[in-house]
Amino acid sequence: MCGIVAVSGTPEAAKLVYLGMYSLQHRGQEAAGIATYDRIRGVSHRHRAPGLVSEGFNEKVLSGLPGEVAMGHIRYSTAGGAGLKNSQPIRVVYREGDLALTHNGNLTNANELRARLVKEGALFQSTIDSEVIVHLIARSQRQGVEAQIDDALSQLTGAFSLLITVNDTLYAARDPFGYRPLVLGHLPGGGIVVASESCALDIMGARFLRDVEPGEVLCIRGNELTRLRPLRPEGEMQPCIFELVYFARPDTRLWGYSVDRARRDFGRRLADEHPADADIVISVPDSANSAALGYAEQSGIPFELGLIRNHYVGRTFIEPSQAGRDFKVRMKYNAVREILAGKRVVVVDDSLVRGTTSRGLVNMLREAGANEVHFRLASPPVRHPCFYGIDMPTKAELIAANRTPDEIAAYLGVDSLGYLSSEGMLDTVSDAGSFCTACFSGDYRAPLVDQERGYAMSSHC
Amino acid sequence: MCGIVAVSGTPEAAKLVYLGMYSLQHRGQEAAGIATYDRIRGVSHRHRAPGLVSEGFNEKVLSGLPGEVAMGHIRYSTAGGAGLKNSQPIRVVYREGDLALTHNGNLTNANELRARLVKEGALFQSTIDSEVIVHLIARSQRQGVEAQIDDALSQLTGAFSLLITVNDTLYAARDPFGYRPLVLGHLPGGGIVVASESCALDIMGARFLRDVEPGEVLCIRGNELTRLRPLRPEGEMQPCIFELVYFARPDTRLWGYSVDRARRDFGRRLADEHPADADIVISVPDSANSAALGYAEQSGIPFELGLIRNHYVGRTFIEPSQAGRDFKVRMKYNAVREILAGKRVVVVDDSLVRGTTSRGLVNMLREAGANEVHFRLASPPVRHPCFYGIDMPTKAELIAANRTPDEIAAYLGVDSLGYLSSEGMLDTVSDAGSFCTACFSGDYRAPLVDQERGYAMSSHC
Amino acid sequence: MCGIVAVSGTPEAAKLVYLGMYSLQHRGQEAAGIATYDRIRGVSHRHRAPGLVSEGFNEKVLSGLPGEVAMGHIRYSTAGGAGLKNSQPIRVVYREGDLALTHNGNLTNANELRARLVKEGALFQSTIDSEVIVHLIARSQRQGVEAQIDDALSQLTGAFSLLITVNDTLYAARDPFGYRPLVLGHLPGGGIVVASESCALDIMGARFLRDVEPGEVLCIRGNELTRLRPLRPEGEMQPCIFELVYFARPDTRLWGYSVDRARRDFGRRLADEHPADADIVISVPDSANSAALGYAEQSGIPFELGLIRNHYVGRTFIEPSQAGRDFKVRMKYNAVREILAGKRVVVVDDSLVRGTTSRGLVNMLREAGANEVHFRLASPPVRHPCFYGIDMPTKAELIAANRTPDEIAAYLGVDSLGYLSSEGMLDTVSDAGSFCTACFSGDYRAPLVDQERGYAMSSHC
Amino acid sequence: MCGIVAVSGTPEAAKLVYLGMYSLQHRGQEAAGIATYDRIRGVSHRHRAPGLVSEGFNEKVLSGLPGEVAMGHIRYSTAGGAGLKNSQPIRVVYREGDLALTHNGNLTNANELRARLVKEGALFQSTIDSEVIVHLIARSQRQGVEAQIDDALSQLTGAFSLLITVNDTLYAARDPFGYRPLVLGHLPGGGIVVASESCALDIMGARFLRDVEPGEVLCIRGNELTRLRPLRPEGEMQPCIFELVYFARPDTRLWGYSVDRARRDFGRRLADEHPADADIVISVPDSANSAALGYAEQSGIPFELGLIRNHYVGRTFIEPSQAGRDFKVRMKYNAVREILAGKRVVVVDDSLVRGTTSRGLVNMLREAGANEVHFRLASPPVRHPCFYGIDMPTKAELIAANRTPDEIAAYLGVDSLGYLSSEGMLDTVSDAGSFCTACFSGDYRAPLVDQERGYAMSSHC
Repeated sequence: MCGIVAVSGTPEAAKLVYLGMYSLQHRGQEAAGIATYDRIRGVSHRHRAPGLVSEGFNEKVLSGLPGEVAMGHIRYSTAGGAGLKNSQPIRVVYREGDLALTHNGNLTNANELRARLVKEGALFQSTIDSEVIVHLIARSQRQGVEAQIDDALSQLTGAFSLLITVNDTLYAARDPFGYRPLVLGHLPGGGIVVASESCALDIMGARFLRDVEPGEVLCIRGNELTRLRPLRPEGEMQPCIFELVYFARPDTRLWGYSVDRARRDFGRRLADEHPADADIVISVPDSANSAALGYAEQSGIPFELGLIRNHYVGRTFIEPSQAGRDFKVRMKYNAVREILAGKRVVVVDDSLVRGTTSRGLVNMLREAGANEVHFRLASPPVRHPCFYGIDMPTKAELIAANRTPDEIAAYLGVDSLGYLSSEGMLDTVSDAGSFCTACFSGDYRAPLVDQERGYAMSSHC
Repeated sequence: MCGIVAVSGTPEAAKLVYLGMYSLQHRGQEAAGIATYDRIRGVSHRHRAPGLVSEGFNEKVLSGLPGEVAMGHIRYSTAGGAGLKNSQPIRVVYREGDLALTHNGNLTNANELRARLVKEGALFQSTIDSEVIVHLIARSQRQGVEAQIDDALSQLTGAFSLLITVNDTLYAARDPFGYRPLVLGHLPGGGIVVASESCALDIMGARFLRDVEPGEVLCIRGNELTRLRPLRPEGEMQPCIFELVYFARPDTRLWGYSVDRARRDFGRRLADEHPADADIVISVPDSANSAALGYAEQSGIPFELGLIRNHYVGRTFIEPSQAGRDFKVRMKYNAVREILAGKRVVVVDDSLVRGTTSRGLVNMLREAGANEVHFRLASPPVRHPCFYGIDMPTKAELIAANRTPDEIAAYLGVDSLGYLSSEGMLDTVSDAGSFCTACFSGDYRAPLVDQERGYAMSSHC
Repeated sequence: MCGIVAVSGTPEAAKLVYLGMYSLQHRGQEAAGIATYDRIRGVSHRHRAPGLVSEGFNEKVLSGLPGEVAMGHIRYSTAGGAGLKNSQPIRVVYREGDLALTHNGNLTNANELRARLVKEGALFQSTIDSEVIVHLIARSQRQGVEAQIDDALSQLTGAFSLLITVNDTLYAARDPFGYRPLVLGHLPGGGIVVASESCALDIMGARFLRDVEPGEVLCIRGNELTRLRPLRPEGEMQPCIFELVYFARPDTRLWGYSVDRARRDFGRRLADEHPADADIVISVPDSANSAALGYAEQSGIPFELGLIRNHYVGRTFIEPSQAGRDFKVRMKYNAVREILAGKRVVVVDDSLVRGTTSRGLVNMLREAGANEVHFRLASPPVRHPCFYGIDMPTKAELIAANRTPDEIAAYLGVDSLGYLSSEGMLDTVSDAGSFCTACFSGDYRAPLVDQERGYAMSSHC
Repeated sequence: MCGIVAVSGTPEAAKLVYLGMYSLQHRGQEAAGIATYDRIRGVSHRHRAPGLVSEGFNEKVLSGLPGEVAMGHIRYSTAGGAGLKNSQPIRVVYREGDLALTHNGNLTNANELRARLVKEGALFQSTIDSEVIVHLIARSQRQGVEAQIDDALSQLTGAFSLLITVNDTLYAARDPFGYRPLVLGHLPGGGIVVASESCALDIMGARFLRDVEPGEVLCIRGNELTRLRPLRPEGEMQPCIFELVYFARPDTRLWGYSVDRARRDFGRRLADEHPADADIVISVPDSANSAALGYAEQSGIPFELGLIRNHYVGRTFIEPSQAGRDFKVRMKYNAVREILAGKRVVVVDDSLVRGTTSRGLVNMLREAGANEVHFRLASPPVRHPCFYGIDMPTKAELIAANRTPDEIAAYLGVDSLGYLSSEGMLDTVSDAGSFCTACFSGDYRAPLVDQERGYAMSSHC
């Protein structure tokens, strides 16, 4: 997953990027990094730190990051390859000068490219797929930075929203399918912003301009923006629908659509497709709040705050033997007996991946006195892994991959289970164009090159 | 404010206390501490750390806190006197053995007591009022721990919910007015728990037994609980209504009342007292969610998620010159244009203290396109400082202390303003008995000894 | 052991104290601390840190220690009671104001005093004996600081060189027997210095004035020095001869004597008392260098650098199984084969306590090819523990306590062993007056009150 | 400068390397690093830390460095390019596997090679010259690790003692001139050791076998050692005589010579060349101790400990305004008045580079009462910078570069000044073969490629 943001054309670039990262923190909490280029002194700076933006950066750190152009990266916790050396921005010196890069997405031919580069003697510093892009640029035989970037990006397949600086110039690019979001804004006092989500524009007082288009490559120097030769289109655009379902912030505007509105509509449609004879509707906070309100509104069943989420939860490392099962769920959520006792409850969640947390939640609701539990999902069954940048478990771990809805309902211990249909989901957002639904449908449009040629698939963000 | 929790009668005492502190984190984020007593080896342990529980404690720290009895403390950030030496538990050795103490509340005669003790040669380690209690116990000429504690507590005026261990024995006490909460629970597998709020019982799988009564002093040894001589009653009980209004977690049960229910009822009553001709009702998340839902339900106006809160916000230390006014508000909240644009909006908040944040929020709503803003408070005007443990600003900073509602509405820039009436508030929770409403009414029941005798008033938690 | 230093009468007090601590670092490496009083603002400051002065203090730390009077303490690593809470300066607030204290020495009635104070309700923060002094001052019923200090010091028995500040006034005192050193100096640019050793004066460019006398109590305010009523003399002065033998720096002047000269003379006398038929004389560096040079000079046998000491050695925590015996000795010393091979070697050391290191050294010399090893000690056999501030092992661990010289020679594996006689040692320094020789003779002059009355003996510095 | 050490053929490899680094600490205190390869699991490990070995490594760190082969590096503080990214071992993955490298010395064509590699698209992680070697190996078109290393090393000019591991195989090489030392040893219990100095063998109980020869390349796999094709000889061997003069530890055996013996002989010869009519001979401790003893022995003037060195000195960052000139010298040395007062003093030092410290020392001796100061240097005037790995100041800063001995004597404020002659120095060690004397003579044998072709000269270790 991950989040990226860059600011150009203002001496406060790093501070504004820091703000943007704050508002993208939901896209990853493992590590954060900022790189800047100080045109006046001709030097670049970088700081990376594990954990949250607020933990790794402070006024002193930011004062050590001067420059008129800055980029930031929020790293999602992924199974393998943790550690600062795998965090971003990547930063190198090559023959054209200082280069920094951040990447949201996942390349599907990264390991094939890496094998070729290693054979030629390239030395890799990390295991992240994004590093191949840097080597491709540095080794390009073409003349000029723009040609070198074009050369490199043309060799990539898969999902990438990219920010690159070479000295004081910022480049922003989105893969031809447009899997991951990338938006463009401007600062009223001067300055251009590129970010994963529009909420990063809001926090710094920037105005939303438009999405960066699939296949588009932008060159930004100070306050001037130029469109470079676009990347070769490979088919219909495929923005990731899971951003709307779960990942993006509800106050973000994505591909012409309000995320909150989309989820509210998913909830309404879900109420039509899977009504329930119940006393109250509750949400699994906070990601399902919009959908649950939509369900409540459409069904006429009152909405209640039956589950409370503890927002201070960090890493849960201890498990007292007395604490009993569902302990990890209880660290994050508490069920409110006064609301639930004796009630028939509709629980709305955004999606169901492994099912372990949901099972614990259902158990908590029963212990708090719920008479019936009707589980409703505001998206279709997740049956396939994502190779385009969403960190999904393997197919074996996906509860819906090999089970019928009845089997899932039995596992969760619910009285009824209802998934939003694919048609329902897509109808709802049809105005926004076509979408990648690979995790629901298995329909992978960008070629899975590494998988086809026997390389491991890299999993990044 | 602050939160306290203790567990007795299980070798996992520190781990369970740690869990309880997790769920009390909303009561303070400045520092956290745990003290234990290991009966087998006859030694006590303590660890305190600045910041969140999840920052200061990990598995290794907890493994260094063995013992069958443990207490924890969550410290709220107060103006003066930060630093670990002012954090709790306090821990000393006196002639009866190892003594540890945590305190939620505020003594109103702390400085008078301190002056007397200093004159006698007592050496203080901190500036917190709780330390006088420790000296009073150590200097008591009475025989036996119980008598010494009784001697000390009888000299205190003001608000205190206290946990004290002397070696392996835990004492829990609540001041005669019962200002601050304290509840009692038991662990199914054996063990007794005392905590500020019932949500701390839930997270560790403990069962709620009852409130500790005003003036009650309990002695807990392993799994055995004895009532000691109660403290002299000084009048009608006075639990703090602000706990219900704002401070406690919505899933907590306080004084026989569900916090969520109380707030929902405040919101309903508010809708009756101050209706509005509007299109949507929104909440200032998360503390006003219950009240806003109550308002929406009662008024029939739809509830929307018009403000999004960023839960990752830490300390906001930078303020880019470009960021414009309301910047600090924008770090924490974002207004959703797609929901607000062109709408007449009712905003429900729990209370209004200084007014600066609310003013920024109103401005954000206007910028996001709201046509009208109707501000509704689910509590009466806050006009008086609290001397019983809620960290309120000085009278001069309280927006309602010297302004009419019209002046406040003008300051906030709203189209209308409505406060829940005192009668409305108290009617709603009348089943729970009488309450301290000093911050609204100025009616201070426990004598303000220090103030009356010319000492500074201490401000603790 | 420990080292203490204070500076009064200059705004650079903390910086100069820091320098003095640097030069007293040989007196303890476990922790370091500085306390200051800023007269202008009327506030006190303190910083303590584990480890070396250079590790715990830097420019930023020192800039946070303003004031015209400052004191510093170097703590020796002692068996029990480590941790910052047991490091100094002790600092408290009592009714006369801010009090800070540092102590070099060991009280012999500390535990009796502590028991009495605890019974009266005093709360102790540490386990160091010095804290009783602070409580005695705070609880004194006398009027005025000077009387309170006199009251407190008059109750102490044992060894103490003390520095105390109450607000901006510095008090310096030495116990009536004068066990531990304390010297007085002045800064050319204005300012008074008191320190454990004269090398602390040298480093800050101060001039040596004189020793603080046994039983003397000085009051220093800015640049003015007053003698207060002296403590009651209890007998002949008893400065610790072990300071001359081993502990003090060779460039220090103690009790009218150069430490280097004293050791050189010990070595000469040793050569007369225990000659050897040998090819070379080597020293156990660096503490025995002076004595070994004296031995070589007197005997006419050439001095060689046969043992090299690694000055970077910190804590040796690992011991590879392959490393063989004497490994810990080898971390600190290396024997030079090119010098030792085929030679008859006299090894001179300052004293022999446990004998384990010496045994390893002898083995190293043999492995490096020494034909004969003649061990010479520039002090008599150490047979008794010290209760006046030198950290000695228990009697059972002292190799000379229950063994004949022949048994010791056999244990060490040497061809001959010779100790300097008590008479030889005392003759050599007779100009400097009488000395405490308790560790050699068992003649304890200051009463061992705690031991006699059944309390544990405290072991401090 | 820097120090390197590797161990192969024992599961305790990292622990033993750690010991070796301890004894090489005098070769650099800026940073320390260890890399290992664990053959059983097929993974490599590395840990680097700023400061001393004892600060950066502990038992836990070492337990995270398993493997049968390990190498360590001690980094000297150099003017530019500090920071961990410039510390060693360098570690990369290339097509043959995991490669780690440490380097002592300085390449004279590093920047030419780097420019070529950058042009080809190589990405550098550091500014140290050693990194070019890694890229040359990775890009070699030859087949097999040995051929690739041979290909890379053949392109280097200048000084290098190198340790390289590729997976579980260790390679050790010394440049054809043999500028920097490298010795070979074996562990009695099994295992091969390669290190900068023989004192690193002693500490781990290893036996000295022989020097690695100039131009020799060794391949070590477990306990098996093979000689590979040697590097092309470029002329007579040129080991650095400054290692004997100052840099190596006195207990080290270098090129068939005891360092202590060499220095003692330099001192004797110096006494013959520059006698003095004086009362005492003193050393500038510790590096000049051997030479001063030689001077005293040959001249018959008694040796005294007139200067005491404080071994605890870290970074001296503060300079009180009162402290006066020579303050920095006084932090490190103290002059002993009791020894010096009224005496005619010969001071022996190993070499004279900038002269600032010596000037301060002379001033200290005068203030301590020395009547006459006769300064003697146990090496010739240093007039030329070193490009082969000794960190010398620029020519402008070398006191002897543009001054006559009389001018130097006047600057130092001495009564007489005497340098050991070049002939005297070389005669003394003539049995050990020819030496590089470039810093004295300006005779640079290995071509200064970068300088000749207009590149900056890199300065490493």
